[in-house]
Amino acid sequence: MKEIVVQKFGGTSVADTDKIKNVARAVIREKNLGNDVIVVVSAMGHTTDILTKLAKEITPNPSSREMDMLLSTGEGVSIALLAMALQAQGCKAVSMNAMQVGIITEKIHSKARILEIKTERIREHLDNGEVVVIAGFQGITEDFEITTLGRGGSDTSAVALAGALGAKRCDIYTDVEGVYTTDPRIVPCATRLEQISYEEMLELAHAGANVLHPRAVETAKQYQTPLRVRSTFKLDNLGTLILGVEQMELHKPVTGVASDLSQLRIVVCDVKDNPGTAAVLFDGLANENISVDMIIQSYARKDLNTNDIAFTIDKNDLARTKTILEKLKPELEYSNVFVDDTIAKISIVGAGMIDRPGIAAKMFRTLASLDINIKMISTSEIKISCLVDQARANDAVEALHKIFGLDCDEIAEVKGDLPDV
Amino acid sequence: MKEIVVQKFGGTSVADTDKIKNVARAVIREKNLGNDVIVVVSAMGHTTDILTKLAKEITPNPSSREMDMLLSTGEGVSIALLAMALQAQGCKAVSMNAMQVGIITEKIHSKARILEIKTERIREHLDNGEVVVIAGFQGITEDFEITTLGRGGSDTSAVALAGALGAKRCDIYTDVEGVYTTDPRIVPCATRLEQISYEEMLELAHAGANVLHPRAVETAKQYQTPLRVRSTFKLDNLGTLILGVEQMELHKPVTGVASDLSQLRIVVCDVKDNPGTAAVLFDGLANENISVDMIIQSYARKDLNTNDIAFTIDKNDLARTKTILEKLKPELEYSNVFVDDTIAKISIVGAGMIDRPGIAAKMFRTLASLDINIKMISTSEIKISCLVDQARANDAVEALHKIFGLDCDEIAEVKGDLPDV
Repeated sequence: MKEIVVQKFGGTSVADTDKIKNVARAVIREKNLGNDVIVVVSAMGHTTDILTKLAKEITPNPSSREMDMLLSTGEGVSIALLAMALQAQGCKAVSMNAMQVGIITEKIHSKARILEIKTERIREHLDNGEVVVIAGFQGITEDFEITTLGRGGSDTSAVALAGALGAKRCDIYTDVEGVYTTDPRIVPCATRLEQISYEEMLELAHAGANVLHPRAVETAKQYQTPLRVRSTFKLDNLGTLILGVEQMELHKPVTGVASDLSQLRIVVCDVKDNPGTAAVLFDGLANENISVDMIIQSYARKDLNTNDIAFTIDKNDLARTKTILEKLKPELEYSNVFVDDTIAKISIVGAGMIDRPGIAAKMFRTLASLDINIKMISTSEIKISCLVDQARANDAVEALHKIFGLDCDEIAEVKGDLPDV
Repeated sequence: MKEIVVQKFGGTSVADTDKIKNVARAVIREKNLGNDVIVVVSAMGHTTDILTKLAKEITPNPSSREMDMLLSTGEGVSIALLAMALQAQGCKAVSMNAMQVGIITEKIHSKARILEIKTERIREHLDNGEVVVIAGFQGITEDFEITTLGRGGSDTSAVALAGALGAKRCDIYTDVEGVYTTDPRIVPCATRLEQISYEEMLELAHAGANVLHPRAVETAKQYQTPLRVRSTFKLDNLGTLILGVEQMELHKPVTGVASDLSQLRIVVCDVKDNPGTAAVLFDGLANENISVDMIIQSYARKDLNTNDIAFTIDKNDLARTKTILEKLKPELEYSNVFVDDTIAKISIVGAGMIDRPGIAAKMFRTLASLDINIKMISTSEIKISCLVDQARANDAVEALHKIFGLDCDEIAEVKGDLPDV
């Protein structure tokens, strides 16, 4: 039996009919390597924006069920066109939407999670020698309601399909050439990583590297499906392979540096230090689905028994957060709320830091030497994040990238053969 | 239990978001009359043209399966937007595509016929007090392949749904105000018919009146569902009611006059008069799915035992017809083929002509008095068609419209109350 490779192409890769023909060539190239090929595609280019604009013309608050019905049409177009392009290039192909495949999700509109993928119909087509072109981003519930998977949905569709089918690899084609040690727009000397572990990729994704959605990486990790991020436009470039840490050889303590400008810091001042006040605050936020990233609680006035509670949230959640804080004021008895939107979160990530002490100290020392003040710190096993002044973010990234040996001239050339996946 | 009304709105009625809001008002108006309402919509305005153009950019010959996948996305957009518009106007509504409803068709792409419509999910939503907005034009096969119904498909969807649900009426909203005694662009004195029978409507449709697709009328006749053709933009106008002839009071022998410029005439000259030659010719055309309308066989050279066979086809089928004739030349032994594309088919239609003799003679006399030559004639129980020179088509229509008493000043004003459907 042939092995299966899943390929995923995003909206920019299928933005027009010429690009779709180009994608067809990339698919046929993979098929000609002797693999069965599943292709997952997003809607063409700006389709989602156009459809959303139509909905907003109808009503400022369209129901999420009807938004899912509306948006799911976008992939219907791209899968049909790609199947046609494959057929026109002499390759047997068939398109399938989520309902035809049976991509079963929770009954939650606009951000459903996949529960199960039926594989029988796909396998029939593969046995027929066909490339199967599948609509990303969409699913159906057990009772035939159309759902969508939210941001990064097509990546998740591809990875989940790869997992369900036991694919040997899932290739995420995108407009970048892979995962870099940091953003090459900030540090020109950034290097493409040949390999990175799921865990590191997750931390980098959460830390603001926009290559892959965390949910897709989590799903790949769960199925232990090797994931390759590669360029649609440079097919000879192998990109970056994301796989289990146990399959990797660790070279350096730090794999990558990320900066995230999407957050802001809120300080709730002089909160009465009663048991449970923090729980009241963060329960209130959680109930409204507002994700809090970093948290620090510190004595404000020890004599008055009050605390300052500082935390970071996504900038888009500010208005809702303020409403919640207003509502909780009688309970929290705080004096005032201070919003700081000039922050950046700088993170260093590396599975190699687990058994190497002193990495955090080295990070703080580096920032101190540049006179960069650290406003908050958070850590995980393989990540250290510092909140700094936004104006100094690039300086921080550059310095950390250099001090941890990631600048391109310090990276060994090729690390031998890639694993055969 | 409430009675069900099915409303169908075509592409021009939902061409933009303002028009969709307007349609929502027409739906709510019907709902407020105390009926359960099913709405069937086509794709917005030029969607089908845009999608077809994309497909042609990919390949000149897209597979019909993938074309159906592609085109079926069009109604996905319009049903979602209309459901949103209804909700925004305070009306409970839900959209459903053909797969969600279960509109089961034959496994023939691009022109499938409906085999069965499942009604359980629709009834659940109706019981919920929701207006159900259903995608027209599309269906699915038993094994979940997406099909489309071909020209007039959304009309057919609406009528078939009305039949399956035992609706009391199916309203076809369109950009004309109803069915007229003839094309008002030719005869300004044409009158809107308040009623017409299925049979007459079928003959008029086949005869070139483009209001309704014959398949939709046939389906309505089969279920005996009253059908109303009415204007989207003049909701107070009741349009034309199409119903069983036995429910109508017949006033005049002729109900309408139609002219059809879409055909051309082919004469195959000096065909050897052997048994079965006509069968060879028309089997050959039928096998290629070319519809032949009128046929005349006449002696060409009685002494040589050869016939001329003349027939009419749709102009779009000319190239394919020529290919077939070329292929059949050895068998038919004809001398040459003559194509006449300057013809018009003029038809008079009326259930009232069945028991009134002399109608045909009156038609021929009228044409003769204008010096209009009749090239071919065909008749049915309720229709007489004559092929004439295209240049004289409008003269013929005007004269027949007048002689059979259809000019507006000759039509009695209101024929009493409309039946309560």
